[in-house]
Amino acid sequence: MTSLSTQSCDACQADAPQVTDQERQELHPQIPDWILVEEDGVEKLQRHFRFRNFVDALAFTNQVGELAESEGHHPAILTEYGKVTVTWWTHKIHGLHRNDFICAAKTDSLFSGD
Amino acid sequence: MTSLSTQSCDACQADAPQVTDQERQELHPQIPDWILVEEDGVEKLQRHFRFRNFVDALAFTNQVGELAESEGHHPAILTEYGKVTVTWWTHKIHGLHRNDFICAAKTDSLFSGD
Repeated sequence: MTSLSTQSCDACQADAPQVTDQERQELHPQIPDWILVEEDGVEKLQRHFRFRNFVDALAFTNQVGELAESEGHHPAILTEYGKVTVTWWTHKIHGLHRNDFICAAKTDSLFSGD
Repeated sequence: MTSLSTQSCDACQADAPQVTDQERQELHPQIPDWILVEEDGVEKLQRHFRFRNFVDALAFTNQVGELAESEGHHPAILTEYGKVTVTWWTHKIHGLHRNDFICAAKTDSLFSGD
C-alpha cells in the first residue's frame, strides 16, 4: 500500500465523491492521531499539535500553510500559545475527500520532520 | 482620551481584575468591529478579517503573531482561505482584561495599515 503522505492531493471538483465507508476504514488507520469531527453537518479531520511556545506553534502554522499552497487545498489552522489545531475537509463537497486524508498525512510528516 | 492602540498591553497577573461594566462601555466603542463571544463560560473579543486568498490571510496571521510576541499576550488566530478570525482574552483571569481591548485595537491597526 502506498503511503498516504507520498500521494498528491488533486484539486477537488464539486461533483467529486466523498470517501466511502470502505475507503475511510482503509485510510483512517494511516492517520491515527486525527479525529473525525462534525461541524455544521460537515465531517472533517482534526488534530491538535503541541509546542513549547507561541513562536514554535506559529512556525508550524506557516509550514502547514506552505503545504496548503503547494497542494492547492487549504485547511483551517488555529494557532494558540503552544498549540496548533489543523482541520482538513473539502469545502466543495461539504465533507471528506481522499485528498483530506492525504493532506492530513502530509501534515503529520511536517510535525515529525519525516 | 488616549487611543487604545497606542497604549501598551501589560502582562497580566492571575489576580488582575476583569474589566468592569463601566470600562467595557468606555472601551468597546473604540473597537466597534469586535464582538463579545462566550466560549466555555469565558468572555472573549472576536473579529473576522477578510482577505483575497490564503497567502494574504496567513501574512496577516503572522503580523498578529508578531504583535502578540511583542506584547507578551497571545490570542487565538484561526487562519482559513480568505479569512482570519482573531480572538483575544486573558487566560489567567478567565475573561477580559483591559489588555484585550488594547490588543484588539492594535490588531485593527495592523489590518488598516495605520
